[in-house]
Amino acid sequence: MIKQLTILGLGLIGGSIARAIKPTKFCKTIVGFDTNSANTKKALNFKLIDKAAPNLATAVKNADLIIICVPVSAFANLLQDIKNEIKTNAVITDVSSVKFDISTLAKNILGKKFSQFVPGHPIAGSEKSGLAAAKKDLFTNHLVILTPDKKTNKKAIELVKSFWEKMNAKVKITNPHFHDQLLAVTSHLPQMLAYLFMNYVHENPYYPEILKYTGNGFKDFTRIAGSNPELWKDIILANADTLRLEIQKFKLDLLALQTALENSDEQLLLAIFTHAQQARENFEKSNV
Amino acid sequence: MIKQLTILGLGLIGGSIARAIKPTKFCKTIVGFDTNSANTKKALNFKLIDKAAPNLATAVKNADLIIICVPVSAFANLLQDIKNEIKTNAVITDVSSVKFDISTLAKNILGKKFSQFVPGHPIAGSEKSGLAAAKKDLFTNHLVILTPDKKTNKKAIELVKSFWEKMNAKVKITNPHFHDQLLAVTSHLPQMLAYLFMNYVHENPYYPEILKYTGNGFKDFTRIAGSNPELWKDIILANADTLRLEIQKFKLDLLALQTALENSDEQLLLAIFTHAQQARENFEKSNV
Repeated sequence: MIKQLTILGLGLIGGSIARAIKPTKFCKTIVGFDTNSANTKKALNFKLIDKAAPNLATAVKNADLIIICVPVSAFANLLQDIKNEIKTNAVITDVSSVKFDISTLAKNILGKKFSQFVPGHPIAGSEKSGLAAAKKDLFTNHLVILTPDKKTNKKAIELVKSFWEKMNAKVKITNPHFHDQLLAVTSHLPQMLAYLFMNYVHENPYYPEILKYTGNGFKDFTRIAGSNPELWKDIILANADTLRLEIQKFKLDLLALQTALENSDEQLLLAIFTHAQQARENFEKSNV
Repeated sequence: MIKQLTILGLGLIGGSIARAIKPTKFCKTIVGFDTNSANTKKALNFKLIDKAAPNLATAVKNADLIIICVPVSAFANLLQDIKNEIKTNAVITDVSSVKFDISTLAKNILGKKFSQFVPGHPIAGSEKSGLAAAKKDLFTNHLVILTPDKKTNKKAIELVKSFWEKMNAKVKITNPHFHDQLLAVTSHLPQMLAYLFMNYVHENPYYPEILKYTGNGFKDFTRIAGSNPELWKDIILANADTLRLEIQKFKLDLLALQTALENSDEQLLLAIFTHAQQARENFEKSNV
């Protein structure tokens, strides 16, 4: 058990962490801070946190573990602001959806204290954002990826690992570049495709009438298009180099399908669909 | 109440209709037939149907309402086989995901009896197929689209409408071409994109390892890629003219995004994502 956990940023993820960690006795006190002070107060009133810090310096000065739950674009400034306020052995972690950029920023900003930083990414979320959407089982059985550097302190890694495991998450350790390459495929590209698809539907001359002609397939396929555009703009830009290549790859598949459709090539269409269905079945099995 | 309902094809849809309609007293007897006789027997053993017909002719000869629940590619031959076996005033309907092709086929095959045919499409389904996946509430609160011709008998339309309403579906009447244009956008294109996306994931050098790096977003976005490839090949081919144009439109959105990404254009990316998120919110509201 640590004495003080500090959560910086009380949105969906920060709020859900507060709800999840509170009953576990992982820490004695949870201190929270959000640049939106009304949000900090709300978290205190809901008893998600034990103390509402009036500013960043107060929030972090006695913290044993600091978890940064702010948008990617706010990360660097925040880290800059706290680096001289934290205790010598305080451990810092984050929840950003990109890890290479974040890790590089942290290396540049933290200097010697970089060994205390354990980059992390819980693969859990919702198309809803904000404190109101926070829930205590958001991380239950979900994957959390940690991407420590070779300089990262082993005890710091262990602490962050046990922190997530207390919330019933499954922790996996890998390197930041690999993380970003894989997440580009499994999360960032589908996010962009879902956004694109909603825009394409919106352009239809029968919108919004067309929205009535939808079933569960449409609903599930487009759910992530409801996600916060500001947050996603940051993530996409931070992983843009990889994503430019990935979109190209996806486009090759699209072209192959177009050719099959152009030629009404029954066998090729069937082969494309069958191949995909088998890959989806493998996913279903691997996820049990 | 009608005397005899005949269900031709006892898969997910045919089986679910049997389960849903049985308790409603819409008909006295449900007769079922499937080219796979083991399937017909199973439906009888599960008490989904009252009688298992040994062949098509027997299945339809006393039917007041015949519902055809077979893949699009099997429709024409089946209709050909039953057209001289049905009663004079028997009403025929179907559940195919395309309506223009089906309606044209029916006009050519049925001749004078075409007025007794009411094309229909329940927008309900599952990525699972087959009798084992059938469930009695598959159509509850779901939309069923009927696309009658101007020649279609009014009483026939009323009968099919009340049939679906008995199963708690909401019935909408439109024309077959409009149906196909709209469903191309809301169902056929996302189906192809989901298939393409799974193939794209499969091509990744870290497949299947990469499947572990997925969350609920991936799961929902790809769910429909688990759908029956044979059925979808038929649907896509039957609506290929419209889909060729629709893929082109989607590609224009993809190109705009690529440009934004190429230039790391923060404002344009944010605009694309925000626009999409609002369209998704409108859908969520319109669906309440």
